[in-house]
Amino acid sequence: MNILVINGPNLNFLGIREPEKYGKLTLEKINDKILKKARGYNYNIEFFQSNHEGDLVDKIQEVYGKVDYIVINPGALTHYSIAIRDALLSVQIKTIEVHLSNVYTREEFRHKSVISDIVIGKITGFGYYGYLMALDFIQNEENLM
Amino acid sequence: MNILVINGPNLNFLGIREPEKYGKLTLEKINDKILKKARGYNYNIEFFQSNHEGDLVDKIQEVYGKVDYIVINPGALTHYSIAIRDALLSVQIKTIEVHLSNVYTREEFRHKSVISDIVIGKITGFGYYGYLMALDFIQNEENLM
Amino acid sequence: MNILVINGPNLNFLGIREPEKYGKLTLEKINDKILKKARGYNYNIEFFQSNHEGDLVDKIQEVYGKVDYIVINPGALTHYSIAIRDALLSVQIKTIEVHLSNVYTREEFRHKSVISDIVIGKITGFGYYGYLMALDFIQNEENLM
Amino acid sequence: MNILVINGPNLNFLGIREPEKYGKLTLEKINDKILKKARGYNYNIEFFQSNHEGDLVDKIQEVYGKVDYIVINPGALTHYSIAIRDALLSVQIKTIEVHLSNVYTREEFRHKSVISDIVIGKITGFGYYGYLMALDFIQNEENLM
Amino acid sequence: MNILVINGPNLNFLGIREPEKYGKLTLEKINDKILKKARGYNYNIEFFQSNHEGDLVDKIQEVYGKVDYIVINPGALTHYSIAIRDALLSVQIKTIEVHLSNVYTREEFRHKSVISDIVIGKITGFGYYGYLMALDFIQNEENLM
Amino acid sequence: MNILVINGPNLNFLGIREPEKYGKLTLEKINDKILKKARGYNYNIEFFQSNHEGDLVDKIQEVYGKVDYIVINPGALTHYSIAIRDALLSVQIKTIEVHLSNVYTREEFRHKSVISDIVIGKITGFGYYGYLMALDFIQNEENLM
Amino acid sequence: MNILVINGPNLNFLGIREPEKYGKLTLEKINDKILKKARGYNYNIEFFQSNHEGDLVDKIQEVYGKVDYIVINPGALTHYSIAIRDALLSVQIKTIEVHLSNVYTREEFRHKSVISDIVIGKITGFGYYGYLMALDFIQNEENLM
Amino acid sequence: MNILVINGPNLNFLGIREPEKYGKLTLEKINDKILKKARGYNYNIEFFQSNHEGDLVDKIQEVYGKVDYIVINPGALTHYSIAIRDALLSVQIKTIEVHLSNVYTREEFRHKSVISDIVIGKITGFGYYGYLMALDFIQNEENLM
Amino acid sequence: MNILVINGPNLNFLGIREPEKYGKLTLEKINDKILKKARGYNYNIEFFQSNHEGDLVDKIQEVYGKVDYIVINPGALTHYSIAIRDALLSVQIKTIEVHLSNVYTREEFRHKSVISDIVIGKITGFGYYGYLMALDFIQNEENLM
Amino acid sequence: MNILVINGPNLNFLGIREPEKYGKLTLEKINDKILKKARGYNYNIEFFQSNHEGDLVDKIQEVYGKVDYIVINPGALTHYSIAIRDALLSVQIKTIEVHLSNVYTREEFRHKSVISDIVIGKITGFGYYGYLMALDFIQNEENLM
Amino acid sequence: MNILVINGPNLNFLGIREPEKYGKLTLEKINDKILKKARGYNYNIEFFQSNHEGDLVDKIQEVYGKVDYIVINPGALTHYSIAIRDALLSVQIKTIEVHLSNVYTREEFRHKSVISDIVIGKITGFGYYGYLMALDFIQNEENLM
Amino acid sequence: MNILVINGPNLNFLGIREPEKYGKLTLEKINDKILKKARGYNYNIEFFQSNHEGDLVDKIQEVYGKVDYIVINPGALTHYSIAIRDALLSVQIKTIEVHLSNVYTREEFRHKSVISDIVIGKITGFGYYGYLMALDFIQNEENLM
Repeated sequence: MNILVINGPNLNFLGIREPEKYGKLTLEKINDKILKKARGYNYNIEFFQSNHEGDLVDKIQEVYGKVDYIVINPGALTHYSIAIRDALLSVQIKTIEVHLSNVYTREEFRHKSVISDIVIGKITGFGYYGYLMALDFIQNEENLM
Repeated sequence: MNILVINGPNLNFLGIREPEKYGKLTLEKINDKILKKARGYNYNIEFFQSNHEGDLVDKIQEVYGKVDYIVINPGALTHYSIAIRDALLSVQIKTIEVHLSNVYTREEFRHKSVISDIVIGKITGFGYYGYLMALDFIQNEENLM
Repeated sequence: MNILVINGPNLNFLGIREPEKYGKLTLEKINDKILKKARGYNYNIEFFQSNHEGDLVDKIQEVYGKVDYIVINPGALTHYSIAIRDALLSVQIKTIEVHLSNVYTREEFRHKSVISDIVIGKITGFGYYGYLMALDFIQNEENLM
Repeated sequence: MNILVINGPNLNFLGIREPEKYGKLTLEKINDKILKKARGYNYNIEFFQSNHEGDLVDKIQEVYGKVDYIVINPGALTHYSIAIRDALLSVQIKTIEVHLSNVYTREEFRHKSVISDIVIGKITGFGYYGYLMALDFIQNEENLM
Repeated sequence: MNILVINGPNLNFLGIREPEKYGKLTLEKINDKILKKARGYNYNIEFFQSNHEGDLVDKIQEVYGKVDYIVINPGALTHYSIAIRDALLSVQIKTIEVHLSNVYTREEFRHKSVISDIVIGKITGFGYYGYLMALDFIQNEENLM
Repeated sequence: MNILVINGPNLNFLGIREPEKYGKLTLEKINDKILKKARGYNYNIEFFQSNHEGDLVDKIQEVYGKVDYIVINPGALTHYSIAIRDALLSVQIKTIEVHLSNVYTREEFRHKSVISDIVIGKITGFGYYGYLMALDFIQNEENLM
Repeated sequence: MNILVINGPNLNFLGIREPEKYGKLTLEKINDKILKKARGYNYNIEFFQSNHEGDLVDKIQEVYGKVDYIVINPGALTHYSIAIRDALLSVQIKTIEVHLSNVYTREEFRHKSVISDIVIGKITGFGYYGYLMALDFIQNEENLM
Repeated sequence: MNILVINGPNLNFLGIREPEKYGKLTLEKINDKILKKARGYNYNIEFFQSNHEGDLVDKIQEVYGKVDYIVINPGALTHYSIAIRDALLSVQIKTIEVHLSNVYTREEFRHKSVISDIVIGKITGFGYYGYLMALDFIQNEENLM
Repeated sequence: MNILVINGPNLNFLGIREPEKYGKLTLEKINDKILKKARGYNYNIEFFQSNHEGDLVDKIQEVYGKVDYIVINPGALTHYSIAIRDALLSVQIKTIEVHLSNVYTREEFRHKSVISDIVIGKITGFGYYGYLMALDFIQNEENLM
Repeated sequence: MNILVINGPNLNFLGIREPEKYGKLTLEKINDKILKKARGYNYNIEFFQSNHEGDLVDKIQEVYGKVDYIVINPGALTHYSIAIRDALLSVQIKTIEVHLSNVYTREEFRHKSVISDIVIGKITGFGYYGYLMALDFIQNEENLM
Repeated sequence: MNILVINGPNLNFLGIREPEKYGKLTLEKINDKILKKARGYNYNIEFFQSNHEGDLVDKIQEVYGKVDYIVINPGALTHYSIAIRDALLSVQIKTIEVHLSNVYTREEFRHKSVISDIVIGKITGFGYYGYLMALDFIQNEENLM
Repeated sequence: MNILVINGPNLNFLGIREPEKYGKLTLEKINDKILKKARGYNYNIEFFQSNHEGDLVDKIQEVYGKVDYIVINPGALTHYSIAIRDALLSVQIKTIEVHLSNVYTREEFRHKSVISDIVIGKITGFGYYGYLMALDFIQNEENLM
């Protein structure tokens, strides 16, 4: 089982600065937690973060036919990047959408996601634990097959 | 740890009829799976389903001060029951919103939830497994405290 | 042929009071007329009225697999009860929507029906006779089969 | 009792071509069915079809004071012809609106009718049988007087 | 000075029937009043009425280069006939829009005119006298040149 | 003089819990204050609270012809229960709408009331005292007759 | 016959400056033309212009019961002054609305008038001549009585 | 206790003219009733009415630090005067909004108030008695302190 | 290969008058160019223009089963004629939509086409050459088969 | 160089009261700072403040042809006074719009300005310093000429 | 004649994978077809594809003054990249917009293009052939000059 | 004092080409003017321009904790780049928004800025001088501390 975990703009800033605000967990440490769980399931996992919409599209195309699942948190691009939507549509890889915070308690424009209707499901508001829930779901799903 | 799992209108119909359409799992069997996981965590769990908005409000009021978390799938009432919203607001119990299907691939009016901005988080599109993910999150959350 | 005729909130008030306003026909007398026509067609017919959304959902679920057609006038719930919509969708019984008055000559919010796109057809503005037209249609439909 | 049955644009195409799609009934045969029922009630009946909005307006004006009811299916003009609306308003003849298909399951713009608020009632989704229901209603209505 | 007075759908019905409702003046008598004033100014005047959008467009094209002013009351077509708008734009004849009743006291959709922004001016709510005001304006305008 | 005081969903929770948030007054104590003032005016008064829309509709129907005024605070149902609106319309009892808090300082959806245009008047933002103001108004109104 | 001619904000600037833009006619000269025509009809006429909404309301109240018609061009206040609307409603004097330019060729917000539905009629786009058309209409109207 | 009672445009017309329409009470007589009740409570009361938005703003500023409560009926300015809203915000005096008629039964634009979210509460539809209810509320409120 | 080229209202005015504005090409000359290209492809071609919506619908019905493609520029009717849409739907002939000017640089209401979603494709802004492009496409399409 | 600095409703309240809230600077002291900078540039400067829309319009008209620039902060009138917009348009004086606070962090209705599209530019959120920036810009602009 | 053909995000995926879905033509092969036709016309042609909005803007700036036409299919960026719009506006090169599929039969958000109003024309729904049609148009256009 | 001046897409094109249209000032020369003023204040200043959204986000992150102010003109990205908004929010550096032209005189979509509510203030329409005004404000602000 090969899995790609993608994080969009500004998520590389998690936990590095202002820990009192964004929590103490850096993206690196979140990735460690994901890696640990992934190993428990014997999954190969790749991490990718970029502030560039084009890089994210390139990466999605690159893993075409090579990974079984994408777990994606597109950050701010969630709300307007139809290019990422189209990339996901064209590679036809099963995808799970994750958001750290409960976007419904924030600004109106964050309630809109342009990929929600093409993913398997969406996990919102559970912090870093949302990524782990995504892996758990994959494990459960695959066991049923 | 005491947990209330609430299901709204028509969810009592799951898996009983037309299994080829809604899956073979009845609400009863889903509850068994939830119960099994809950026991693994040593949680007391109560299940409640009703087709009546008023019953759901009564139930939420009744568990005031008695349960630690509510896991709720309000069914069709998700989209318009401000009474359930107010009930959740008044008891101030930590709540997780679950939907079986990916509501974003269905009718426009199902994209709107009147409780999303007052819950901890929302899990959409992972079938019965969404309820288990909610329990996993609670377990993880409580271990951190 | 088994048929369920459902009436929603406040329709039990028809003709009982203020006959100069709502006409002299009570719901009981309307039901008599429906019954008479139904007998002429040799149909078994059941009547159900409630002011409670939950009761209407319960009743629709209860007749699952037992009736051939539902004739429904959801009253005020026509405009917002997605729970009734979901109940009708889940039992998959052929349904005809009836309204006594021409709702298009009344307040804007009464023009919207949340079930119109899932019923066979809709009859509006012909008073009690709309229920009889629904039976006539059923008779004609069944003769063609 | 004199009755005018009006059909708008493209309804002359019914049943002539693609019977597997639109049913085997031509407008002619539908008119035969209407005529048969009308004779049973001893009604004089006139049929009129045109693809021209202006012709339909001319015809409605022409029958002023000469017919007791109009049964109209304005086809596509239902959705925008305020000229037909005004013609119906000016002749003050009791009118019943009929549509063959359930317009609420079709495109959004077909949900709007510019004459619904000035007719006695509206019958939607019952195929050719809708015209017969209109005659039945007239018969019942007139018997009450 | 050559002037074309155009009236759209249903205006041929003015004053003929239901005089207690629409006033006693027929379109013929209104035209007599217009003619009388036009003669006082030595204007050649042509009257045209049709219930057909296409006829109105044909007529507007036909008078291209032949009349100095158009006085138009498009009736119901006021609200949606972009074809008439385009016809007026293509002939580039100075046009005055007249409405008999005060459309702002009627249905919302009558507040919209698709030609108001391409005419010289608009006269609303003064009954038949609005046509005479249009002629007075033309006389005053031409005297200034 | 007979008066029915109706309170909708969640108002039974007033003052019982979290007094620091919602005030120390329970619904019971508010009712005592209302009762005291009502007795000063020699009014018969009945109190009714329910979390069920259907129960509220039933109660309104039940007092038809038996009470002179209804004082109602429909809670969350204020914003969407057309069924309650229809019930009030059908019994034709003079009604006064009361809200404890100033709804205009809260969420947008609370600004909308579906009964405001069918009541005598509306009192908003004066806490429990709003119910007393309603009684004062009734007393003044009746003395004028 | 007593008539009040009211002009709102900025109309006192007509023709004084930038004659190449707004025409050579000052408000004074327009008033002379109106006066001349009024005298021909033996009307008493009063002119009033102010840049203050309150002054315009005061003036409308002041002429209550003293004038037979108001001819009003509220200038920019046309689009938002409900206070002027209410003043006109409370004095119940027959009113004609005049605009110099064709407002439909200008900004969107100028298409809306808050008094159009309470006046007899509206004259738009004929320059100063619109005021004279209003007087002609009054003369014609009064002769009919 | 010092109280300022403010009335906006056109309220000076109350009861003077057309008593069959607006009631027999003039603003003067309403003020007498308010004064009488105020004296019973030993309040100093000042009345102010103007048709000028600027005067109302000036008056609100003038009483800064001098009055304890403002009771205001801004008339038509209720719906658009952000200047009055800002004046009330800047003086920080406790304010009660009163409307004589039930604005929700009138035109759509009267449902909107630009001050509702910054006042203590709002009383609508109880005629002159609404002002007295405001005084009663103040009395009750102050006694609690 | 048989092809029908349809032009709607006012397109008969192209190039006849005001050549400095609309170009020197008359519809006749455009048709010559189309004809020349059609002959090169050995296509039979028929041209039809009318200012009447009904005539266009009649013509579309008339060629049912007789032509292989329709190339249509409905002119102003593009924006509201659902009757033409329905005619195209009922004959099920492959259709290409052509507009001479770039409608997206013109008024908002011209951006909307009611047939765009039922044609093969749409060519906008290339002047008369758009018709030739349509023929080229047909030729290429047919060669692939 | 002659410059008029205009401030609208409630700006006369700046700094006088509640300095902890609105800052210690009174409008008088802000004007002193403006005056000091203006003198440095050898500008004649006039200050004008009013709570009356009509006064502001009068003042703008009064300086027609007498000042080179207007620096304006219309306060609450920014959001709805088309009369001020029209006054600025008619005098054709170069105008700069200034707001003390960042209006985009406040209520939605404050984001809209009805004069933004007719001024040279707009300065928002820099407190009293915004007025000085306006003068600096004028100085720079004039030096370029 | 120099021409730049630009393709936006995900178009590099055409035909490479899932040929049964997107057709067998790769972007490379489409470019071969374009090249062949371009050579027939003696055009110099450059191809550019990128998944990065910034790269597309850079490229458009780079060819400033060097190419005669741009043929662009911005892919998903069509719907929101105002940066590409501005780049096209600043280089002032004649541009033709091409889309492979009929975007009007797809999701609502694909109907909106932010460049349609600044290009010569738009070709939608003809597959790869749309690029060739663009070249034909250029050839024809240039021959006319 | 360290300041970063950021310019978004297409601003590198200023003044290079079409000087008659965009002015003679290149971005380089504007930067010289900024530099000159910055030196007068003894500020360290860095300039950054890119057509890539991702580059702008990278740069904002890079200066975290290193600069005191950001002066930003995001060009077209102003209207949709929530990624830039989030970057600014995460670094918590005081920011001033500058636009060269008066965006309110341009297309509707340019009126919307997704960063206006998170900056100190906004300067619009003063050309290159807006950047200098931003520096003056910073100087004044810092002197007060």
